[in-house]
Amino acid sequence: MAKIKVGVAGYGTIGQRLADGVALQEDMELVGVADLAPTLAIRALHEKGMPYDLYLVSGADSAPFEKLGIPVAGTFDDLLDKVDIMLDSSPGGVGAKNKEIYEKKGIKAIFQGGEKNSVADVFFHGYANYEKGIGKDYLKLTSCNTTGLIRTVDCLDRAYGIEKVAITIIRRVADPGDYHRGLTNALQMDKAPSHQAVDLMTIMPHVDATGILVHTPVTHGHIITVLATGKEKITKEMALKVFEEHPRIRVVRIDDGFQGNASLFKYARDLGNPRGDMYEIGLWEDSIVESGNDIMFAINIPQESVTIPETIDGIRAACGLQATREEGTAKTNEYLKIGRFK
Amino acid sequence: MAKIKVGVAGYGTIGQRLADGVALQEDMELVGVADLAPTLAIRALHEKGMPYDLYLVSGADSAPFEKLGIPVAGTFDDLLDKVDIMLDSSPGGVGAKNKEIYEKKGIKAIFQGGEKNSVADVFFHGYANYEKGIGKDYLKLTSCNTTGLIRTVDCLDRAYGIEKVAITIIRRVADPGDYHRGLTNALQMDKAPSHQAVDLMTIMPHVDATGILVHTPVTHGHIITVLATGKEKITKEMALKVFEEHPRIRVVRIDDGFQGNASLFKYARDLGNPRGDMYEIGLWEDSIVESGNDIMFAINIPQESVTIPETIDGIRAACGLQATREEGTAKTNEYLKIGRFK
Amino acid sequence: MAKIKVGVAGYGTIGQRLADGVALQEDMELVGVADLAPTLAIRALHEKGMPYDLYLVSGADSAPFEKLGIPVAGTFDDLLDKVDIMLDSSPGGVGAKNKEIYEKKGIKAIFQGGEKNSVADVFFHGYANYEKGIGKDYLKLTSCNTTGLIRTVDCLDRAYGIEKVAITIIRRVADPGDYHRGLTNALQMDKAPSHQAVDLMTIMPHVDATGILVHTPVTHGHIITVLATGKEKITKEMALKVFEEHPRIRVVRIDDGFQGNASLFKYARDLGNPRGDMYEIGLWEDSIVESGNDIMFAINIPQESVTIPETIDGIRAACGLQATREEGTAKTNEYLKIGRFK
Amino acid sequence: MAKIKVGVAGYGTIGQRLADGVALQEDMELVGVADLAPTLAIRALHEKGMPYDLYLVSGADSAPFEKLGIPVAGTFDDLLDKVDIMLDSSPGGVGAKNKEIYEKKGIKAIFQGGEKNSVADVFFHGYANYEKGIGKDYLKLTSCNTTGLIRTVDCLDRAYGIEKVAITIIRRVADPGDYHRGLTNALQMDKAPSHQAVDLMTIMPHVDATGILVHTPVTHGHIITVLATGKEKITKEMALKVFEEHPRIRVVRIDDGFQGNASLFKYARDLGNPRGDMYEIGLWEDSIVESGNDIMFAINIPQESVTIPETIDGIRAACGLQATREEGTAKTNEYLKIGRFK
Repeated sequence: MAKIKVGVAGYGTIGQRLADGVALQEDMELVGVADLAPTLAIRALHEKGMPYDLYLVSGADSAPFEKLGIPVAGTFDDLLDKVDIMLDSSPGGVGAKNKEIYEKKGIKAIFQGGEKNSVADVFFHGYANYEKGIGKDYLKLTSCNTTGLIRTVDCLDRAYGIEKVAITIIRRVADPGDYHRGLTNALQMDKAPSHQAVDLMTIMPHVDATGILVHTPVTHGHIITVLATGKEKITKEMALKVFEEHPRIRVVRIDDGFQGNASLFKYARDLGNPRGDMYEIGLWEDSIVESGNDIMFAINIPQESVTIPETIDGIRAACGLQATREEGTAKTNEYLKIGRFK
Repeated sequence: MAKIKVGVAGYGTIGQRLADGVALQEDMELVGVADLAPTLAIRALHEKGMPYDLYLVSGADSAPFEKLGIPVAGTFDDLLDKVDIMLDSSPGGVGAKNKEIYEKKGIKAIFQGGEKNSVADVFFHGYANYEKGIGKDYLKLTSCNTTGLIRTVDCLDRAYGIEKVAITIIRRVADPGDYHRGLTNALQMDKAPSHQAVDLMTIMPHVDATGILVHTPVTHGHIITVLATGKEKITKEMALKVFEEHPRIRVVRIDDGFQGNASLFKYARDLGNPRGDMYEIGLWEDSIVESGNDIMFAINIPQESVTIPETIDGIRAACGLQATREEGTAKTNEYLKIGRFK
Repeated sequence: MAKIKVGVAGYGTIGQRLADGVALQEDMELVGVADLAPTLAIRALHEKGMPYDLYLVSGADSAPFEKLGIPVAGTFDDLLDKVDIMLDSSPGGVGAKNKEIYEKKGIKAIFQGGEKNSVADVFFHGYANYEKGIGKDYLKLTSCNTTGLIRTVDCLDRAYGIEKVAITIIRRVADPGDYHRGLTNALQMDKAPSHQAVDLMTIMPHVDATGILVHTPVTHGHIITVLATGKEKITKEMALKVFEEHPRIRVVRIDDGFQGNASLFKYARDLGNPRGDMYEIGLWEDSIVESGNDIMFAINIPQESVTIPETIDGIRAACGLQATREEGTAKTNEYLKIGRFK
Repeated sequence: MAKIKVGVAGYGTIGQRLADGVALQEDMELVGVADLAPTLAIRALHEKGMPYDLYLVSGADSAPFEKLGIPVAGTFDDLLDKVDIMLDSSPGGVGAKNKEIYEKKGIKAIFQGGEKNSVADVFFHGYANYEKGIGKDYLKLTSCNTTGLIRTVDCLDRAYGIEKVAITIIRRVADPGDYHRGLTNALQMDKAPSHQAVDLMTIMPHVDATGILVHTPVTHGHIITVLATGKEKITKEMALKVFEEHPRIRVVRIDDGFQGNASLFKYARDLGNPRGDMYEIGLWEDSIVESGNDIMFAINIPQESVTIPETIDGIRAACGLQATREEGTAKTNEYLKIGRFK
């Protein structure tokens, strides 16, 4: 069977990682990436010898690329002519415009969380609703926090039934290297309910969800506390069992040295993971407490990389590579080497 | 009636504010404060002309005070001979040793949250259990987070009945000016359940409480999200009503400019409050959401000053100045000018 | 002699402190302050009982003020009709437009550092060029860093002669309470030379100055390291002597507890200073080192309040209240109680 | 010729990177690493399949390693019996004790900056005094800031002659993942002169150096501003020329996107460098300014990895692999792929 040909639009924080992730899939071929200007990410791509071809999106000025000696493989149109599906990680709003072009070209696309839900046929999560994405042309991925959150709520729900969740998102406000946004010595409130709770209900409509989001001045991963109400009482042992079985959840303990979000970032670097990234969410065993019949726990969301596996699941669903969530996610996990530590 | 004579042991972050607060009570007399070394706080006391007498605790070296020209009124013993009650804000553990001295001298004392509960006859909160403190010799105040948290849970409980709470504490890790502790670009987990949830159950034993605490690298006030389960459904309107009536809760809105903990700190400075302090907790109206039959909301805890009013309530209870929580807290509020903005 | 009538345009971080500072001058009368919208600062003004009259600038909508019950004394025009001089701390660029109005009304004005130098007749610093401001209609104050820096370079220059300075500005990136700007876990470079070095040369044209500015994610005061080249060798003792004599320089030591910028912020709060402000810059005695014939030292700039005294000096110069720098600055110091600690 | 056999004592932040760096040297063999407890770094080593053998230092408890299934190759003694030279990155003070063992075993060692200078025969820097290390048994490397700083001062000195430097170190206070130290919303002063200036004079005794160090709450690289006085005037062009020729200096520009220390950290991750590390220091072209006859500029020090190349240079010198600084540093650069971007 021919490999699925994949392109990436927007070579930013997410786009770079999508490209790296797709390149590891043995049943896919990364045709190239498209961007607008010689950003640091593009300069780094050049310095490491152009492992991926670079295409320029409409409106790009080729002069600075020429000046820097960065080879350009063609236009956005050229890229689209070669691919089966685009992963669109353009800045918010651009994806909606790109969709018109994708439709004309007759190619599929997966959009990231910054776009409106209406851009896609299905609001997608590899574990929660893989089957809904099968054969569809346009998927939109859940955002980073929602992706990680749903991993936990979905596996609890499949095992025990979940009726209600209330979350507190302790949000990292910027990524390492960001200078266009930041917060200094302040916690910042968002109006409740947080969009992540609302998004969870879109993916899992039988669950009642709400939550509060607070921005914090850190860069290495969001932390979410989750209070989940089961159909029956869920004990700590019951919860821990399904968390430990999930390939994309890494159960950690404070006493082992995982003191917070920065420990997980350090650990991923120590592992030698590319870019120091981690695909799994962290879940603290020593945070799990029972609240009456409810269960409460805390998770860590590595915002830069957490959506990569579920996006690749999306390619599998949209292109019909695997027919079930179990097969689709297992193949992604295999190629990304997720779950080796289990 | 003679004024109650009050001393303060430990002129640190809390001790300074206790002294300031007592000095405003027209039915109390601040006899003096006691400390060990010429800290910045003591140097500032000197620079502003010694509004309070300074006594030296046992083990203090008087030489550096003399060198700096800081007048010393006497020893710790001298102070104890003049007072009816001590507010002990010594470093954790020292209060327990001081208690032996207080007992010998036959004077009452109120300890801060750093001491063990066993140091006191009653674990005290001005609004939740004022009557239990009446006439008692030794009280221990709830810590800053617990004090503010109980304000909200107690008023909901009195109005509607509360059965269960689950909290997420987004903790400020240091006070402005702290160099002995800090956190840089990291969120840090504590093992669950947080002690604040356990403490709440000690004060309000009919409530089931648990929670998770995450340290954040900021200095201007903790934020706590609270999920409270009532005996009946509590709507946003029902919750808001009792919050707005509480003199020590300041209901604020993001759209008015209260974007986070630093906005409240700024506002207290703009008010011209001494030290830029605020006695009220902030509660965001736009954080209140219903979660099924539960109610969820977020509060801001000004950690340096929030326990001052409840400690002064404690003096009123222990010394029998007022016989009911309504009278005791009202008198404290009057002298501290709490609730003027209502 | 009639008191000088003063108004303040822009009741933000600087405007509030200008108003407070002018209100303390016994030979001046604060007529009122002008602003556009019910910001937190205005709400605080209201909550504390309107110690100053509030006027609305052109374009302001009075409806929200009415809704909040905030009394408005009149329009900007009304304010201008009552004053001799305006302190303009409007957002950058607005001052230049206001100047046209001031000229029509025939009133004097002092602009803050955000405006272009061309807005004023003289780029002013109370200690460095007071005499140049005498009788002038329009002054522009040096910015916070430049104001504090010049205090040190000017006093060294008057005592020993300074030929050259090279500075490194370790800049606080936001004020406490700021949410519109911030930096998270990053140091940010500005292109050299820093404008503060250029500004110093405008005020002190016989000195050659350059420097590098680095933004840091803190809120409590800039730190500047200064390397000054004298006409002759300046020893540590020589430098210390003139720093200790300067009323607006507070010489501090690490061993006394002044560990950094946050210690000075804490100390000002402990002093009970309004808003926790400090007018003096801090200068670390234990930072002073000799570099060959040059002298190097580090200072702390309390950015919110440092320009207040020099602005009030400017009123004295522009209105001809005192004829010499010694008399003008001494009067400002007296009313602001600067130098009491010496 | 047989490969030089190298061991690493202390598998912490520096030790991990030393091991990685040595493993890339084709004329060296990494025998193994030694540590005390199953830290996160050791757990990561295990999770990635033990690319290096692990030995346990004296006092280590093997039980937790067994429980975790981490294979142990032997004792510290066993490791020492197999190596020619140890790279000692133990916690400060432990290296001095280890030295006694190294002497008994008759093996060479290179210590990191945390040890006292007296532990070694030579205080070493690959570019500045390679020849002094040739054939010596015990070297001590300069610390991270000093290593990077000397790269710049040494190349200026060799080209033009340097007489004096004055530095301001804007120090990152912790590494990513550190929880045992940190600073929150504060800049912290060290007493001047900084040890880095003193250390520079030990390595380059003909240069007069002093400086001030300020700690800042960030984790991604120190920034140092350097003011260097040449024997003759050094222009910006002259300085830039030698910086651009230096393999371990990366000249960057703000306009290219290198806005600060976090940009360089991001760029190294984008490059796909192991652990997201960078061996080169960054030097901002747009920070270079002339100050009279002096030259001033700012550099970025990637504290976790900057000393790795110079430590490997040290192996080359101590073991006599190359006879000159040019040959020794060139070989290290070749294997670490330093300077490819030039």
